[in-house]
Amino acid sequence: METKNIGLRGIEVADTKISNIDGEKGKLIYRGFDILDLTKNSTFEETSYLLLYDKLPTKQQELNEFNAKLVEARYIPKQMQKNMANWRGDADPMDMLQAFVSALAGYYDEEFSNKDASIEKAINLISKVPTIIASWQRIRNGLEIIDPDSSLSHAANFLYMMSGEKPDTEVEKIFDVCLILHADHTFNASTFTARQVASTRAHMYSAASAAIGALSGELHGGANTEVMKMLLEIGEIDKVELWIKEKLVHGEKIMGMGHAVYKTYDPRAQVLKELSRKLAVKSKDNGSI
Amino acid sequence: METKNIGLRGIEVADTKISNIDGEKGKLIYRGFDILDLTKNSTFEETSYLLLYDKLPTKQQELNEFNAKLVEARYIPKQMQKNMANWRGDADPMDMLQAFVSALAGYYDEEFSNKDASIEKAINLISKVPTIIASWQRIRNGLEIIDPDSSLSHAANFLYMMSGEKPDTEVEKIFDVCLILHADHTFNASTFTARQVASTRAHMYSAASAAIGALSGELHGGANTEVMKMLLEIGEIDKVELWIKEKLVHGEKIMGMGHAVYKTYDPRAQVLKELSRKLAVKSKDNGSI
Repeated sequence: METKNIGLRGIEVADTKISNIDGEKGKLIYRGFDILDLTKNSTFEETSYLLLYDKLPTKQQELNEFNAKLVEARYIPKQMQKNMANWRGDADPMDMLQAFVSALAGYYDEEFSNKDASIEKAINLISKVPTIIASWQRIRNGLEIIDPDSSLSHAANFLYMMSGEKPDTEVEKIFDVCLILHADHTFNASTFTARQVASTRAHMYSAASAAIGALSGELHGGANTEVMKMLLEIGEIDKVELWIKEKLVHGEKIMGMGHAVYKTYDPRAQVLKELSRKLAVKSKDNGSI
Repeated sequence: METKNIGLRGIEVADTKISNIDGEKGKLIYRGFDILDLTKNSTFEETSYLLLYDKLPTKQQELNEFNAKLVEARYIPKQMQKNMANWRGDADPMDMLQAFVSALAGYYDEEFSNKDASIEKAINLISKVPTIIASWQRIRNGLEIIDPDSSLSHAANFLYMMSGEKPDTEVEKIFDVCLILHADHTFNASTFTARQVASTRAHMYSAASAAIGALSGELHGGANTEVMKMLLEIGEIDKVELWIKEKLVHGEKIMGMGHAVYKTYDPRAQVLKELSRKLAVKSKDNGSI
């Protein structure tokens, strides 16, 4: 029997009003706002509010209340961190994240079919995912876990939990912009997976965990891991040209060069390129980030 | 902006040659064999071999070697069981399974793109999933975990790890048939999720974990959980008629009554109904199963 493997290219399944990509013009739009405007005029917290509530916070109080919820939700159970410490030390961070996001359901099983409960779960995911990542980063490097600091922004708190040092405002802003740029990317493979799982009425942690699984593949978010491996392999600027030529001669792929959906230029790359330059100069100046 | 939510009903994405359903005739076919024939003439181990290798084992030695691999793969790391014991005691078994199947990757990270490694991962999944389920079942009931018994079949070993008692051959056979009936069900929501995750080149544990997430939803495998809740709620045979009438009067759904894909009768139900009757009689006879 012949099997078909047509895939979903060109097939309309559903769409999303959360964000959209104008591939021809190289634009990514969240809820009607160009991401380039959002990186200039908003924070990750405000962008998250926009994505969740379909409007920007109009009063300071709305934003303050939302921030307070995000800050409060940063902790994960100590028991979970203890379990992480029992894990195999060289476990892949994406596998850890998939497992522990799914595990959140064991601790935070808010009611299912209710908009407020869904927002609560979303806030838990936004705030606890960085804590899971940072906890594992510290554990696998044999370091003490650092508790969240409620005086810091989402971006600064993550960098603090990772490194133990509070970042300066420039680094904080750069990372905040990175988070804004990655907050949504329309109907990609991980979003599709999350919707597929949620469509059976499985809960949001289950759906997000599954989405992280899809994201881990090297044809999706895993491409970033491959880029990092590539950079470490190349090692120095002087070796770039030879390395690239070698790859091209052997007809090998070079990971991470553009997203197929953009016909012109990935608008995120435009911003990130400039930020990388700033960070590189900065780290030369003071020997560290 | 209006959003579309068309879903995949009637859209051909891909198909599978592992199994197919003839909804009109009420038939489920694995690799060309009617499941009714497989329940009569094969074991779960032989059916697994058929699904994995696209043929039934023709020599006893082939089957013996396959069985030996399945038996050897039954253990999970003690560390994983220790972590389970640290979990919240009332965590949902499906959430536990999703988390710990994903966690397997931290322990068994066989190479990716190689048929043999894929078979090895599949064998790990077939053999370790029952051990994960049984470990959690024991832990959450405050009981000692029972190690797999290599002298028992797949079906008997699972029942033994769950209850601590070796089942008699009739109960073993009944459960073996249940496993055969549930070994595959073509391109359903969980299989679709697994393929979606695997299509990004994420590894098989990640894909299976995501599939378990999809399965947990009450519009998929979670329907079984709802049926169990319903049975516990009804409590006694005498109360069935009134309970059903009440539900119908209020226009409520009654869970688990048939699978939409079958126009006539779910062929699995045909077998399961008879087996339930046998088990019920048996448990009346000796006061337990």
